[in-house]
Amino acid sequence: MNDIKTTDAASLRSFAGREAACLEEAMRGDLAEVLAGCDPFLAEIIAYALFGGGKRIRPLLAILSARMCGEPDNSVYRLAAAFEYLHVATLIHDDVIDKAAERRGRDSVAQRFGPNAAILAGDWLHARSMHLVGRLAGLDGLEVFCRATGQMVDGEFLQLRYVADCSITEEQYFAIIHRKTAMLIASTCETGALFGGGDGPRRRALAEYGFKLGTAFQVVDDLLDYRGETAATGKRTGNDLAEGKLTLPFIRALANADGPERDLLAGLIIGESGRGRNLPAVSGLIEANGGFTSARRTAEKLVGEAVAALDIFSGHSDRESLAMLHALAGYVLGRNK
Amino acid sequence: MNDIKTTDAASLRSFAGREAACLEEAMRGDLAEVLAGCDPFLAEIIAYALFGGGKRIRPLLAILSARMCGEPDNSVYRLAAAFEYLHVATLIHDDVIDKAAERRGRDSVAQRFGPNAAILAGDWLHARSMHLVGRLAGLDGLEVFCRATGQMVDGEFLQLRYVADCSITEEQYFAIIHRKTAMLIASTCETGALFGGGDGPRRRALAEYGFKLGTAFQVVDDLLDYRGETAATGKRTGNDLAEGKLTLPFIRALANADGPERDLLAGLIIGESGRGRNLPAVSGLIEANGGFTSARRTAEKLVGEAVAALDIFSGHSDRESLAMLHALAGYVLGRNK
Repeated sequence: MNDIKTTDAASLRSFAGREAACLEEAMRGDLAEVLAGCDPFLAEIIAYALFGGGKRIRPLLAILSARMCGEPDNSVYRLAAAFEYLHVATLIHDDVIDKAAERRGRDSVAQRFGPNAAILAGDWLHARSMHLVGRLAGLDGLEVFCRATGQMVDGEFLQLRYVADCSITEEQYFAIIHRKTAMLIASTCETGALFGGGDGPRRRALAEYGFKLGTAFQVVDDLLDYRGETAATGKRTGNDLAEGKLTLPFIRALANADGPERDLLAGLIIGESGRGRNLPAVSGLIEANGGFTSARRTAEKLVGEAVAALDIFSGHSDRESLAMLHALAGYVLGRNK
Repeated sequence: MNDIKTTDAASLRSFAGREAACLEEAMRGDLAEVLAGCDPFLAEIIAYALFGGGKRIRPLLAILSARMCGEPDNSVYRLAAAFEYLHVATLIHDDVIDKAAERRGRDSVAQRFGPNAAILAGDWLHARSMHLVGRLAGLDGLEVFCRATGQMVDGEFLQLRYVADCSITEEQYFAIIHRKTAMLIASTCETGALFGGGDGPRRRALAEYGFKLGTAFQVVDDLLDYRGETAATGKRTGNDLAEGKLTLPFIRALANADGPERDLLAGLIIGESGRGRNLPAVSGLIEANGGFTSARRTAEKLVGEAVAALDIFSGHSDRESLAMLHALAGYVLGRNK
């Protein structure tokens, strides 16, 4: 864990910035090629959706994973673009589903262009992402990627099943976030490894890193939904609570609370209309029952496991890529957006 | 064209029925495999969407195209399933976009399970269809398929662009339906041909057949939207008009009409709220100006061209498959739903 703490966050930022510039160039090149002759409105929506200041973590993971396994040429940026396309496609559809007006501090695609155009643009990005993965990472890559995509949808359904259901267990919570988030990040790393020509152990190590990192990422996301600063995250806090999504801080607090407090907490999430207003009270009870601290500790443990999965690369010649994977793990814990 | 007229429609029906049974078995097998351990609600929606009495034309085209190029084993049914999955995925999303309560004479998926579940289920089917195409028809198949999928979305945008726009030309109408429908049917035939091991000329011949047939199919669909019997089609007539989609009968009638009638016709499609109610008046003017007859003749010509594209198979040993491709062409013209 020392690696994480001592890695300079500034060097990750500047590295990520350089890679993001290459990624964006690859995305613009890809779109120019494939959208030539297409309806300009489609091109406008896609550009709006893709170039709105995303964190570009998924593409970075694909690039670094490829480099841990070989010396990829510039086409690695197009492979990386596929993961950004898919990520943005799911955000676009999520915002239609959640009727979210904002994303990253500006209008969501659904808000700006209407839900119909948003559904179609998401479908387009989805198709293009699979196309790129198949072409660049072959059928094995497509297999890994499509399995994760299917499970992501399954995770969304599982989440719907437990809306406002206080009987949700920790195992069920993790089953949801594994499918919704972690599998896809694992598949991003594994596909990158495949592209880089990685052997079985390297592929598995990077998949494991991605899986643990993705799980930690979602736990932190769920923490930020209670405690994030809107100015930093670009979204309001309390969205999950308002939608009845019970996440790890809540589940842990409920398990720790004594009888009367448990009843109080459970009572605060009943009733769709009032739930959002109960955010301060729910947060207070979670805090009082150690839910935030405990969830935070779990995220730290997961990040430690992610880093440990990289042990097989300890003698790896590409020191920079390895350091950046470590730094990304640190970033997941430290992020405020 | 004689082939079409003399082919027994009953023999197509019984052939299609037998193949549909094999297809459905393959779909059930595939779903059981891939949905094992998934949320039962997802499985329920997928089953509802897939086993609701579709015509199964796309899978049939994939199967027949494969047989025109080789002697495929039973896995051809799983490839065929991919095209049904994609077709159903687009119908599900279309019904969300159009807020359509009914499909095939029963609740649409969006109506029955809600738009959110419908968007997700469509995404799931979309991902699964690409997965199957990649696995079974290889990267060349995926390439053909993904290009067509992207163009389908582009066609939808192009269509949005011309809503209630009387200046739409015949060329623009065909640009829309080529992308929205014909390219995908062409890609279905071409992917089947690839799966069957077809060489370049056979692949191109079957793609051309699919393209012409798909174009004719959409022209007939657009005719049925004016003149179909709801009892047969399972949907109300006049949907296109209500949505401001100007199709070939309208475009031809507008071109044929004299000044005053042209103004009258153009006036009847202004105003979103009243358009649907103008169906009888619009139909009357289209009829009076030869729009239906002329569009019908175009569909016949396209079907003739589709059949002509199969000429290179004239000495083909699989007489049944060739006859069925001819019969399908006849079916497209004769269908009432």
